[in-house]
Parts: sequence; C-alpha cells; structure tokens
Amino acid sequence: MKTKLTVVKIGGNVIDDAETLKHVLQEFSQLDSPKVLIHGGGKIASELSLKMGLQPKMVDGRRITDADTLKVVTMTYGGLVNKNIVAQLQAFRCNAIGLTGADANVIPAQKRVTKEIDYGYVGDFEVDNIDVERLSFFIDGGLTPIFCALTHDQQGNLLNTNADTLASGIATTLAKFYETKLIYCFEKPGVLLDADDDNTLIRELGYLHYQQLKDDGIIHTGMIPKLDNAFAARRHGIEVGIKHALDLNKPAGTILL
Amino acid sequence: MKTKLTVVKIGGNVIDDAETLKHVLQEFSQLDSPKVLIHGGGKIASELSLKMGLQPKMVDGRRITDADTLKVVTMTYGGLVNKNIVAQLQAFRCNAIGLTGADANVIPAQKRVTKEIDYGYVGDFEVDNIDVERLSFFIDGGLTPIFCALTHDQQGNLLNTNADTLASGIATTLAKFYETKLIYCFEKPGVLLDADDDNTLIRELGYLHYQQLKDDGIIHTGMIPKLDNAFAARRHGIEVGIKHALDLNKPAGTILL
Repeated sequence: MKTKLTVVKIGGNVIDDAETLKHVLQEFSQLDSPKVLIHGGGKIASELSLKMGLQPKMVDGRRITDADTLKVVTMTYGGLVNKNIVAQLQAFRCNAIGLTGADANVIPAQKRVTKEIDYGYVGDFEVDNIDVERLSFFIDGGLTPIFCALTHDQQGNLLNTNADTLASGIATTLAKFYETKLIYCFEKPGVLLDADDDNTLIRELGYLHYQQLKDDGIIHTGMIPKLDNAFAARRHGIEVGIKHALDLNKPAGTILL
Repeated sequence: MKTKLTVVKIGGNVIDDAETLKHVLQEFSQLDSPKVLIHGGGKIASELSLKMGLQPKMVDGRRITDADTLKVVTMTYGGLVNKNIVAQLQAFRCNAIGLTGADANVIPAQKRVTKEIDYGYVGDFEVDNIDVERLSFFIDGGLTPIFCALTHDQQGNLLNTNADTLASGIATTLAKFYETKLIYCFEKPGVLLDADDDNTLIRELGYLHYQQLKDDGIIHTGMIPKLDNAFAARRHGIEVGIKHALDLNKPAGTILL
C-alpha cells in the first residue's frame, strides 16, 4: 500500500496578510501525512516592481516576463516569500526545505515561445520530466518541500511558471509513489456559483457539470485555469479539493468528482 | 579513509560582475570532489536598498539589520543571487541545491544581542549545532549545497550571518565526515603584504606570522575577520587556501600553515 501524501497550493491572497499566512502555515504543519507546499507570490512582486519603477510589459494584452521582471519574481517568490515560509514552518516543527525547479534539477522546463509572441522568461514543463525520485528522496528523508513557482531551462535561466499548473504537475508525478491528495487553498470556501456569496458553495463538482457552468458563464476568469489544472490531476486518479486556506484540516470546500 | 570534499566561499566582488561569476561557477563545477559553495551578496543588496529608499541604520558606528534590511537581504542573497547561481551551475551539469540555514533546519542560530546594542536580525551559530548528518544526506545524495549567508532562530525569523564565518563553520563540521579543504576566493591572488600590489603575495602564512603582520598594521580591515575565520578552521586540521576566484583549480594563492 502506498503512503498517503498531501500536496497543498496556497494562493496570493493568503500570502499577502502576515497573520493569515501564519495561521495557514500552522494548519499545514499539522497535516499528519508527508506533504508538499506550492505557493504563489501575491502582491509583493507587483509592489516591488512599482518601487523599482518597472512598468508591466504587455504585448497583445498578454503580460511579458522580461529580464527585470524575472529578477523581481526571483527575489520575491524565490527569496522573500519562500524563505520566510520555510523559517515559519521550522518554528512549527515542520522540517521545510524551500525549492525552485532549478534546485536539484527537480523541474526542468522550456521557455514558452509561440509563433505570435515571445512571453519572455516564462516556462512550461512536462509532468514526466519532474524528477519524482529526487522529490521522494527529500520526502522520505523527512523533509517537506516548499516550492515557489520558478522552473529553469537547464541553460542557466530561471523561468516564471504558473503555480496552479505546478501544483497539479507535482501531485500527478508524486501519485506514482504515494497515495496523493491535492488541495487548492485560497480565500474562498471553495468553488462558488456566485463568487460574492459564500453560501453558494458547490460541494461536489464533476467534469461535465464544470463544463456546463463554464459554458453558462457561471464559472469564469481566474477559476477556469485553476479548475482545468485541478481536473488534469483528477483525471490521474488524484483526490482533489478546493477550499479555504484555514479549512485545511476540516472536511470542507469543493471536492472534484 | 574519508572522502575528499571542498568548501568554497566566494565574496561580493566576484558576484557583482556577471561574466566573472559565470567563469567562477564553471571553475567550481569542475572541482572533481564533492563540494559546497557559500556566497556573499555583493552590492546588489545595497543597490536595492537605495532603490527602495532605505537608509543604512547605524548605532555607535555599527550597521543594524532592521526588518526592512532583512527583507532586502532575503530577497537578494536568498532569492536573486542564490537561485541564479543554482540555475547557472545546473547549466554546467553541477546538481546544485540552494539553501539558507533555515532550509532543512541545517543551521539554527541565535539573534545577537549584547548589553550595549541590539544588532537587529543578525545571527550567530555554534559549529556543533550545524546538522552535519543532513548536510551529508544532501552531499552523499549527489547534490551540491549552495549556501547564502542566512540562518534562522527556529522561532520563524531569518538572521543575517557573516558568510566567511559560515564557510569556516560548515567546513569545520564537515571535517567530521570528510577530508575537508576550505578555499576563500575573491578578486585578489591571495593574502598580500601590499593590498595594491599583486606581486606581494604571501604563499604560506602561519598563525604567529599573521599575528605579527596584524600587529604591524600590514594586514588590516576586511582581511582580519576573514583570516580569523580561516585560522579557526585551520586549527581543526582543515587545509585552508585563500586565492583568486579564477584560480580555483590551480595551485595558487596563500596556504595557511
């Protein structure tokens, strides 16, 4: 029988407030199975960019990660946010280790270039290229990997990567070795029919239902890529939940069918 | 017989120039024994502080690491510098992993408070508290640890720590398990009788000779704490060299007797 393992993704809004983050990390540290955390960056990167006088670069309405933006992302996600999460988890006696995909070459990726547009230092990875043996070396060695959403191209460049996609990919690859559960945490109680009304929580969501809600415009914008990533993991047999970050240890939120 | 291992410290001036850093990392990747790198931060932290409008805080002529300065140090040393070194080493097929002392709880430390002055988020560590078993878990697992000079207080706070002291402490603790060599690298060919004349290199330096040169004011300022740290490791039987960063694989520089 495989060992149970929990992969948790925490989003930007959870990170921006120091007190909330502390509570969430305490909840995370209390998960009793081996675990992995993936975090976004919150507003810190945008705020630092502003202070440094960087203008967001858009081409055809899409954000480009130029060299200066990558520096800011590396400083904030890879440095400030990641290392403070690690230090705080250590205080909760969770033996955390902060990682990018470049560390121990765990997540090699490719720079995204389409015919139409060069997105700059943005990376996409193949799930099969994630080094699951190295991840299990850390996990079975008693460590809790804490990933920020940076990968690398194996040519010396870090690449900005979507944190939801990273969480889905890491959970999928770990399912080879562990009975894996994936939890997307954020500031809402789960998937809502009305984003402004916490009482409209969908407790169970199947893929066809999701497609219908998407077609009807009820699920929209930011929730779509998140749920696409979540269902990608679900298709690999992984148990997937979407819930409020403070409900990490409670049976709550939306479960994907 | 113990396995050979090399601990290399690279200083700020080596890091500030991208081309020099790349060459040094290539040299480092070519060391054939297991290895550990400790890096300082260079001018990047000061430059970012300036951009963010932070004023250096001094009390009685000593620099204080306040909360904002710690943030900048965490961003630059722990994020930008550390993760870029890791990504570049991966391109040279050196399986690097970037660490602070908080990661995997490798280097617990104490916040430095004297009767006279609170230095802020500055940490001192005991060599015996470095987790040498965890370090050898990484090294024997085929990884090359890359340390920035941050430790933690196990209460959730990162602490700014002297990189030369960290290198000496890590080399000293690793000497329990490995035949350890420690190399301090910088932009000079070694310890010089005249800091402005590369032809005044001291090829071999004993402790009494060092004390004499210090008393005579020939060795002064920044070289004194570096050499104090270097001799601390030497007293534990570790082979210690001080040389130009580009001479890493050459028999060059100053050897401590």
